[in-house]
Amino acid sequence: MALNGPALHIPSGFVFASATAGLKQSGQPDLAFAEAQLGANAAAVFTRNKVVAAPLLLDREHLNKTRGRTRAVIVNAGNANCATGSHGRNAALQVCKELGRSLSIAPDFVFPSSTGIIGVPLPFEKITAALPTLVSAARADQESVMAFARAIMTTDTRPKLASTQLKIGRNTFSVLGIAKGSGMIHPNLATMLVYLFTDIDASPAVLRRALADAVDASFNRISVDGDTSTNDTVLLLASGRSKCNASDSLSLKKFSTAVTDICKSLAEQIVTDGEGVRHVIELTVDGARTHADADRIARTIGHSQLVKTAWAGADPNWGRILAAAGRSGVSLTANNVGIWIDKHEVFRRGIALPFNHDEVHKAMLQPKYPIRVTVGRGPGKSYLLTTDLTTEYVHINADYST
Amino acid sequence: MALNGPALHIPSGFVFASATAGLKQSGQPDLAFAEAQLGANAAAVFTRNKVVAAPLLLDREHLNKTRGRTRAVIVNAGNANCATGSHGRNAALQVCKELGRSLSIAPDFVFPSSTGIIGVPLPFEKITAALPTLVSAARADQESVMAFARAIMTTDTRPKLASTQLKIGRNTFSVLGIAKGSGMIHPNLATMLVYLFTDIDASPAVLRRALADAVDASFNRISVDGDTSTNDTVLLLASGRSKCNASDSLSLKKFSTAVTDICKSLAEQIVTDGEGVRHVIELTVDGARTHADADRIARTIGHSQLVKTAWAGADPNWGRILAAAGRSGVSLTANNVGIWIDKHEVFRRGIALPFNHDEVHKAMLQPKYPIRVTVGRGPGKSYLLTTDLTTEYVHINADYST
Repeated sequence: MALNGPALHIPSGFVFASATAGLKQSGQPDLAFAEAQLGANAAAVFTRNKVVAAPLLLDREHLNKTRGRTRAVIVNAGNANCATGSHGRNAALQVCKELGRSLSIAPDFVFPSSTGIIGVPLPFEKITAALPTLVSAARADQESVMAFARAIMTTDTRPKLASTQLKIGRNTFSVLGIAKGSGMIHPNLATMLVYLFTDIDASPAVLRRALADAVDASFNRISVDGDTSTNDTVLLLASGRSKCNASDSLSLKKFSTAVTDICKSLAEQIVTDGEGVRHVIELTVDGARTHADADRIARTIGHSQLVKTAWAGADPNWGRILAAAGRSGVSLTANNVGIWIDKHEVFRRGIALPFNHDEVHKAMLQPKYPIRVTVGRGPGKSYLLTTDLTTEYVHINADYST
Repeated sequence: MALNGPALHIPSGFVFASATAGLKQSGQPDLAFAEAQLGANAAAVFTRNKVVAAPLLLDREHLNKTRGRTRAVIVNAGNANCATGSHGRNAALQVCKELGRSLSIAPDFVFPSSTGIIGVPLPFEKITAALPTLVSAARADQESVMAFARAIMTTDTRPKLASTQLKIGRNTFSVLGIAKGSGMIHPNLATMLVYLFTDIDASPAVLRRALADAVDASFNRISVDGDTSTNDTVLLLASGRSKCNASDSLSLKKFSTAVTDICKSLAEQIVTDGEGVRHVIELTVDGARTHADADRIARTIGHSQLVKTAWAGADPNWGRILAAAGRSGVSLTANNVGIWIDKHEVFRRGIALPFNHDEVHKAMLQPKYPIRVTVGRGPGKSYLLTTDLTTEYVHINADYST
């Protein structure tokens, strides 16, 4: 699978474009547009935050009304259209209506997204004014796809893309993913937006299942700071324009794996681009009673400020990991706990093992390394891709003034 | 009530001492001793962390065996005696036995505590060697109490004390509190240790109730970084040497309030001495369906890295507060949410209010100020004393190497 390579695999049936509407203070392109020219089946996953931005509410309604069919995606960066009262819904609706007019389709077939500052009314006229240009400029080439990826960036330091092409029998299909997001940062809370395009033929129900599995194995397994945005969205569109379909179980498996792999790559790109991140930690917890228990322990460790600052200092401080595990709410006994930092076992069954400090410190200077915590002999396992907490993170997030 | 004044109220029936056993790398005094010369009724509250240090397990056993009677408290700083396997229990037991021998009492009447580095065997011989000196040096004067408070310090920048004297009828009783703890910091995870002494006459059952109420209103309402230590302990001892007793409901109320006030003062001293803390926030959440819901929202806001870094920068970023409330797991609607920063209402029912940025920024430069979040019309309320997250915190916690 060629992820992130110079040659992106662009699934048939989609065109892409970007424009500058003047929403970003930087003056950079801030509008991204993708069209499934003959329409696409769709599935989407949204933020679990109870505060949900206006476009997401509209997206849900639209997908319900069209029973999972979408024709166009329109994303603006620079304004999240969140906490904007009734104006917010109307603004998103105006964008859908105008785009619908340009494409001669009902507004329900438009999927809008917004990312950026919250609490500021969306100047939707700036967006609608740019729509005709976007529609006529849309192309199915590398440059247009890259431009889409750049236009949706906010605090990201680089565009995030992954693609793959696979065979089913003699025919090929592609999956292309484009994402934005890093740590959470003001003014935009670093919304995670992910758009997945494929030309396989698959029903909305099949897409929903494949997407749920993929998200669970990727975006739900990453954590920079534990905060989740009001605008997080993952959308999967299938044009059905290849000669492949996901109807038999083998094809379905192949497709599902491809979507998961693309999502994992994008998730890792997001973590690596986290604010002030110097170390990415592949944290595994095993031996818990249930997967849910293991998950709770992993998240408590992965979100502990003390643990994350120790990682920033490459400090082999297993005591903080143990203490975080102990306060996760899951019942555990120190005498059953073991801790490995990279290849080094540092704690076994309640007792600190002697270890070569310099060696472990050196292992922790790697940009990415594994930490394993075992808490017993149960079947429960969890995995979390997480990061350190550096002074840069605090600088980025504290030294901004609204 | 004279808290923290130059003249401490020392309850009758207790003597105090400190010594240097050589457990702190700094060479500062690291042993603290208090004796209830005719014994005391006792109640204790311990960490909720599932990883519990050896002395705490012994304390529980001792209080069970003696049915809530204690004669002596012995605290060492510099070594937490945690995650030290069977050696840990034996080490704590040796200390109790030797101190018991010096005082001619059973070891069960000794209450040991430890704070400091975890995972390193406690060199208990250094402690036992100092016990005879401690016992003979113990006095009931200001200097000895201050020396106790200083000996238990680890990362604390100042000793923490509070005392009060109250009347019941014509008689007076005193409550004296001594504490240590700041943010959580390696190598000792900044264990919180609190010792409360009173000369009122009260049964262990009465003490347990008063202590539970006091802890719930004070130490359970503070949060620097959400981490809890393996050694946290709060002990309340009543010598019964005054002529007051807590047998009728009015006296009980008076006593209980006094203990709570002392605990609140100590809790605030702990937060203010948090690592790298520049701003203390009095966070109130109200209007929730239940107190538990309000508490969950308050803790999610108070532990959010994004919110805490905004506070460090005195940034009136209500969006982060709203987003944290939204991800707390409690059902809420942005349209019912209101946010006040100090006296300034910045968000009302789903909409950002215009506010004078400079004024609010200025209010957030205060060392301490309130933030109120209302989430509806329910009866659920919560209060949390919390802090900002500064680059100093990260420096302190990252730049230490084991």
